[in-house]
Amino acid sequence: MSQAGQIFVLSGPPGAGKSSIAARVRADMPDLAYSVSLTTRPPRPGERDGVDYYFVTRQEFQRRIAAGEMAEHEEIFGNLYGTSQKVVGQVLEQGQDLFLDTDVNGAEQLQKRFPEGVFIFLLPPSRKVLEERLRGRATEEESQVRQRLERVRYELTKAKNYTHLVVNDNLEKAVAEVEAIITASRRRTQRHLKLLEEFQAS
Amino acid sequence: MSQAGQIFVLSGPPGAGKSSIAARVRADMPDLAYSVSLTTRPPRPGERDGVDYYFVTRQEFQRRIAAGEMAEHEEIFGNLYGTSQKVVGQVLEQGQDLFLDTDVNGAEQLQKRFPEGVFIFLLPPSRKVLEERLRGRATEEESQVRQRLERVRYELTKAKNYTHLVVNDNLEKAVAEVEAIITASRRRTQRHLKLLEEFQAS
Repeated sequence: MSQAGQIFVLSGPPGAGKSSIAARVRADMPDLAYSVSLTTRPPRPGERDGVDYYFVTRQEFQRRIAAGEMAEHEEIFGNLYGTSQKVVGQVLEQGQDLFLDTDVNGAEQLQKRFPEGVFIFLLPPSRKVLEERLRGRATEEESQVRQRLERVRYELTKAKNYTHLVVNDNLEKAVAEVEAIITASRRRTQRHLKLLEEFQAS
Repeated sequence: MSQAGQIFVLSGPPGAGKSSIAARVRADMPDLAYSVSLTTRPPRPGERDGVDYYFVTRQEFQRRIAAGEMAEHEEIFGNLYGTSQKVVGQVLEQGQDLFLDTDVNGAEQLQKRFPEGVFIFLLPPSRKVLEERLRGRATEEESQVRQRLERVRYELTKAKNYTHLVVNDNLEKAVAEVEAIITASRRRTQRHLKLLEEFQAS
């Protein structure tokens, strides 16, 4: 496959279920490449370095931004998150499709670099459910919950710029829809012009 | 749902498996409306009027064309095929999605009317397999087979104008891909701006 790979980005406000859905999509579609994000946030219980994130110092992260090594990065609640430009470039050049989850600012940066990419916004079923989910996280204090709800408000203003919108009112359905969006995009005729030519010549 | 429905069109050369796949998609996605085509071709054994096609006389079909009652129509091997404009209009206005299978000329006419529609071209796995499939049809004579192979050549020249391309090398996979294309298109953000507004206002 000589054609460049395609980029798929999943975003959504905290509590929308982005991480669960991203993990399922990765398990179900092993031919999708993905890039482990870098972050300066401390690991939560159970998170593993190099699997969930690369956990780096703020100094190291800022060095990489300054060196132009980040395809996208954003600061959320005082922590930096981002994706390595080198990984993105290598994967796409090899003709592999890349699946990323980023926040809305990261997605905005990627949309400028990859206007043909597929950008999926994950919406929680309702603000009420979202609030319940955020309060249900044992690791979060009330002030953090309020901060996150403010963040939700901000992220929602960006949703209309995404190519697709998936409502996570049911995990199985949401996973199936994200996977359908990826599968459908892979069947775009533009990606198969060589196959068509070969068939016509046969 | 006040928004207009969307149109999905499946085309493909004779022998690509269009009818089998269309039947499966209709069974799996009962909320898709569809329109039974009109034809002047005589029924094949087992075909039912009003289910597989509306079988009409050439005179009646031509009257409908002249009256502007056809959304698309085409002549294949001396028989007319087409879709009623009234049915298409009513379905879409009601906000229902419409799934049609037409030949490449019909699809071309629909693409002009519905540039935002989703147009799926079904490709057989290879010319060799296609030829075997066409010869395997007990109802076809050799001269008909040759005529159909010529038709395949013509239809293939139109494939690049479709939005999506699905290869029918495996029926289950092809059905799943067509359904994914429909599901994905239904998740386009443009179709859910009202939902987004409501969420933001909540």
